[in-house]
Amino acid sequence: VVDVVEPVARRAKNRYGFRAFASDWRRAVENPRVDCVDICISNKLHGAVAIAAAEAGKHVFCEKPLANTVEEGNQMVQAVEAAGVVNMIGFNYRHLPASMTAKEMIDSHQLGEIRHFRTLFAQDFAASPQTPFSWRFSAAEAGAGSIATMGSHALDLARFLIGDVECLTAMMRTFVKERVVSNGDIVRDVDVDDMTGLLMRFRAGASGIVETTWLAQGHKHHLGWEVNGARGTLQFNSERMNELRWYDASDLAERQGFRTLLMGPAFPGAEAFVAKPGMGMGYADALVIELKRFLSSIARQGSAKPSFRDGLEVCRITEAALASAVERRWVHLCEVG
Amino acid sequence: VVDVVEPVARRAKNRYGFRAFASDWRRAVENPRVDCVDICISNKLHGAVAIAAAEAGKHVFCEKPLANTVEEGNQMVQAVEAAGVVNMIGFNYRHLPASMTAKEMIDSHQLGEIRHFRTLFAQDFAASPQTPFSWRFSAAEAGAGSIATMGSHALDLARFLIGDVECLTAMMRTFVKERVVSNGDIVRDVDVDDMTGLLMRFRAGASGIVETTWLAQGHKHHLGWEVNGARGTLQFNSERMNELRWYDASDLAERQGFRTLLMGPAFPGAEAFVAKPGMGMGYADALVIELKRFLSSIARQGSAKPSFRDGLEVCRITEAALASAVERRWVHLCEVG
Amino acid sequence: VVDVVEPVARRAKNRYGFRAFASDWRRAVENPRVDCVDICISNKLHGAVAIAAAEAGKHVFCEKPLANTVEEGNQMVQAVEAAGVVNMIGFNYRHLPASMTAKEMIDSHQLGEIRHFRTLFAQDFAASPQTPFSWRFSAAEAGAGSIATMGSHALDLARFLIGDVECLTAMMRTFVKERVVSNGDIVRDVDVDDMTGLLMRFRAGASGIVETTWLAQGHKHHLGWEVNGARGTLQFNSERMNELRWYDASDLAERQGFRTLLMGPAFPGAEAFVAKPGMGMGYADALVIELKRFLSSIARQGSAKPSFRDGLEVCRITEAALASAVERRWVHLCEVG
Amino acid sequence: VVDVVEPVARRAKNRYGFRAFASDWRRAVENPRVDCVDICISNKLHGAVAIAAAEAGKHVFCEKPLANTVEEGNQMVQAVEAAGVVNMIGFNYRHLPASMTAKEMIDSHQLGEIRHFRTLFAQDFAASPQTPFSWRFSAAEAGAGSIATMGSHALDLARFLIGDVECLTAMMRTFVKERVVSNGDIVRDVDVDDMTGLLMRFRAGASGIVETTWLAQGHKHHLGWEVNGARGTLQFNSERMNELRWYDASDLAERQGFRTLLMGPAFPGAEAFVAKPGMGMGYADALVIELKRFLSSIARQGSAKPSFRDGLEVCRITEAALASAVERRWVHLCEVG
Repeated sequence: VVDVVEPVARRAKNRYGFRAFASDWRRAVENPRVDCVDICISNKLHGAVAIAAAEAGKHVFCEKPLANTVEEGNQMVQAVEAAGVVNMIGFNYRHLPASMTAKEMIDSHQLGEIRHFRTLFAQDFAASPQTPFSWRFSAAEAGAGSIATMGSHALDLARFLIGDVECLTAMMRTFVKERVVSNGDIVRDVDVDDMTGLLMRFRAGASGIVETTWLAQGHKHHLGWEVNGARGTLQFNSERMNELRWYDASDLAERQGFRTLLMGPAFPGAEAFVAKPGMGMGYADALVIELKRFLSSIARQGSAKPSFRDGLEVCRITEAALASAVERRWVHLCEVG
Repeated sequence: VVDVVEPVARRAKNRYGFRAFASDWRRAVENPRVDCVDICISNKLHGAVAIAAAEAGKHVFCEKPLANTVEEGNQMVQAVEAAGVVNMIGFNYRHLPASMTAKEMIDSHQLGEIRHFRTLFAQDFAASPQTPFSWRFSAAEAGAGSIATMGSHALDLARFLIGDVECLTAMMRTFVKERVVSNGDIVRDVDVDDMTGLLMRFRAGASGIVETTWLAQGHKHHLGWEVNGARGTLQFNSERMNELRWYDASDLAERQGFRTLLMGPAFPGAEAFVAKPGMGMGYADALVIELKRFLSSIARQGSAKPSFRDGLEVCRITEAALASAVERRWVHLCEVG
Repeated sequence: VVDVVEPVARRAKNRYGFRAFASDWRRAVENPRVDCVDICISNKLHGAVAIAAAEAGKHVFCEKPLANTVEEGNQMVQAVEAAGVVNMIGFNYRHLPASMTAKEMIDSHQLGEIRHFRTLFAQDFAASPQTPFSWRFSAAEAGAGSIATMGSHALDLARFLIGDVECLTAMMRTFVKERVVSNGDIVRDVDVDDMTGLLMRFRAGASGIVETTWLAQGHKHHLGWEVNGARGTLQFNSERMNELRWYDASDLAERQGFRTLLMGPAFPGAEAFVAKPGMGMGYADALVIELKRFLSSIARQGSAKPSFRDGLEVCRITEAALASAVERRWVHLCEVG
Repeated sequence: VVDVVEPVARRAKNRYGFRAFASDWRRAVENPRVDCVDICISNKLHGAVAIAAAEAGKHVFCEKPLANTVEEGNQMVQAVEAAGVVNMIGFNYRHLPASMTAKEMIDSHQLGEIRHFRTLFAQDFAASPQTPFSWRFSAAEAGAGSIATMGSHALDLARFLIGDVECLTAMMRTFVKERVVSNGDIVRDVDVDDMTGLLMRFRAGASGIVETTWLAQGHKHHLGWEVNGARGTLQFNSERMNELRWYDASDLAERQGFRTLLMGPAFPGAEAFVAKPGMGMGYADALVIELKRFLSSIARQGSAKPSFRDGLEVCRITEAALASAVERRWVHLCEVG
């Protein structure tokens, strides 16, 4: 385990049962006894660590977003693919039973033609101007604001459920324009978005609306999404992650209504955590599913999903959104499907 | 009472207690015993009827949207203002107790600086391609699609709660491109939006996101909105119109959470319909509040809100959205506040 | 219109368009121009007014509970049946679309064998010891406390949906034992139940649990009930009276969940009030349905439901509950079905 | 690890990392290297195992219910207390953050005088007559039916939150009177309650209503409870275990409503599992809290809660309920507080 502050690294080693610790990430990457690397470092270092790890033949798991720029993300993809190592990006919401169930229902045409997708990722941790400055409020370090830190999850879910984005237009807003560095008199400018709104068209034809904000009072961890198809609708909200709401248009006319599916052992991913529906699994359990998949991919020498390429696609959307917001125009991402 | 189909007009007279009926709206407008006119006719006739009524000195209530174009809406405003008649537009959601309570809370700074507004007006009556063609699917008759028929309500609520819109960019989509005229073999093209998405900036600085669709399976009559301020959040959904959800950021840290306010007799507008909170009022009751206000304005020779000017402002936003969607660019509506 | 306080009666006449007023109810009952009587007077006078009205050949609508004792209720039933007048009791919750839909679903065996019924009628108007004394807190005037004022509704719904009660045992509790008469120094004892709990067995075999309380903070007007059958469950809560929640055990295993049915024009009773599901009707609208049924019964010279006999059956359950609570024993009401 | 089926025990050893396995529980109890025993065996063996373990000086954790009879429960309490070993009973719901928060709020008088407690533990796993016979449907093996298997949790929460029960009356019902033994032609009688209803009076004065059923279609794992105090109300439902609903009667009149508290790191027990409110913990996480407390009690040589005495108190309530249901009378449990 590595932390730039050595005592922190030492405590982590002892607390979590690692065999060794270091304060320089290069030590881990160079260590021949290390098989894989899990990158949970500031965004701007993702590229350097991942590329070094890949070149050293380590399998690489990288927290989201993959990189602060498409250029860097591209280099990371090339590095892991050239090295032939397992690579995975930490879009953990994909691994929720509700997400996997939704994906299955959409792919098996249970919702019919998909027309709309909308998602809101709202938190309120930055709503107060007293929330101190951190690297998340700096474009140089985080790449972007709410659209990177939170939006990368929402955009990956959009791709996972609906597919690639053809074009978009964006609005980005910063309401709290400067913040104090904690425990100090220094005030720093916030040069990233507190809020981003996107209008999108998916390659397969559906419309998409995305909003991310860390200023939305009352929303502690609300990643909500809805899919409207010709034959039904699905709704999800991360604050009730064991529930998936479904409307089936083929129900009899007077018996139609949103129904709440409780994720139980028969739903993908929940079987290891939940003995029966209604005994919910926790947010952290989805991280276990995620890492199990990464480790299983290594064990069976296969590939993992979502991969660095999936991470790169989200970087492309984010970079397009940044360009769109500045230039106030639609940006094209791929050919119509 | 007037209906172009005379037997319908006759039945309406008898059923609802009108003194007379006619099949030509001009008869009502010319009748000296008529004091006021309530226009519930196809959008494209709003202007002709309203202007004739105003010139005849009648007070005028007009259903939404005011007109199919800003130009026509302008003429209507000029006509009623020149005639000095009471004029009101049927944005009935303003008159809900929850709307009025939200307005009071926002205006008295209980939410602090307003940062975000988002609204979704979703229905599913047109989700099936079998839903027959009607005038609502024709640009010539309805002006626009979901953004006019449904969106005018959402946009008026946006103005009512947050204020004027400075600029916007729009996406409009049509998924069901032709529909059969009912009881016939005729197929007609749908040349209006099934769905519209807007990114907006309000004059006062807040961000706005609007979506309207009549293809969203499961949503029967969902006009939902949320306001995020620096000190709190409000949420509303028309399907539970007797509830207003409020998050107060000034609550003690471990006692914070969205609370559900039940509209009771102490909330504006509800006192005539609800003996105690939890005994909800109905959707139609808000129409009674609305018409009472119109008639009271006539009785006290005052002006009514929302007025034709409010209707015109919504036409301006809708027309800007149409231009934006076609030209794929941001459209400016007013100076920054 | 009659009120014992003459100026109140006069104002009511003018405000609501009655032709005449009086301060003595006998004047209305004796008046040959009066066809029917609607009794909204203190419980202890229901019998005197109803019997006099029936003997005068008037049709009679009586607010719930029918009477303070079974004996008096019996006399009322005999009077209206001997006179052959239309008689109806104000159990208005029966007339809600959700109630009628539930009744239809149960009677057509959509829920299978009915096993359990549970209901909670909770309000909080008396939670504060400062809530002043009124006739509702007096056994002599109201017969009983929460079980009469509120419970009569819950017990009628139990009979309406599930059928007759075979036997029960009760617990009654009074927490606020005295209250001040408003605007005075007088303190009066509360000799009725603040709370009643019932365990019941229905004639058809189902179990029943009933709770009524006017001390339950936060519940403004919560009449909730649930029916569990072998093949499904229904849930209702009066604070969301336009919704009926249904679980269908015949749904596919991985697609099961409570679904929310929104009462729309296709549901019985809603068609006159609701243009589409999601545009809810109000609590007061159900009173219109109720009185329409009373007046229609008069017009077609038929009988009305729920009748005084239904009111009497609820009195029998209430009286059994009072006896059970005092004597701490099960009380038998009818033979097993 | 012990299982009567040796291959199962062997697999469990390997899968979960135990050092040894056995097919006879006596082997574990006699093994000097074993410090503590976790009893997850059929109810009827709880006593034998626990007493033998205590006599061997092992600390003992026992699943609920403690025993099938008060007599056996008493022997277990005496055994562990005589041996001076740490003893704990598996009432895991106590350890949920929502339960602990509720307890704190009640004990610090934030709800004022407690008037009512009501709880429903509903599942539907036995709703179908096809659900095969198991030991849970046998009085000889399980002691009782839903009131033992599920109700022991509900009754412990009642005691945890409100305190001891003074007296009760019970109704028990069996709807599915026989069930087929799985994979066989044998039909066995069900001689336990499918459903139990209790009316209770707590020693401290509050009323209590309890219902348990495993026939309630749609309820997968619904342990819901509500506490009404003079100054507020709390509501909980295990299917949304990260939420606690609170109504505070001291809120301003027009700002009152149930608020939803999301259990986050500042709530007791959640800090190890939840990084922020809205990232919920899982049902299984509460079992980790529970066992951590057991092990900590051993480590610091202290006592654990809930103890065998708490388990015994629940046995006393259950046995009183069984007697009450058979004899159709109120049963007294302790003196008024």
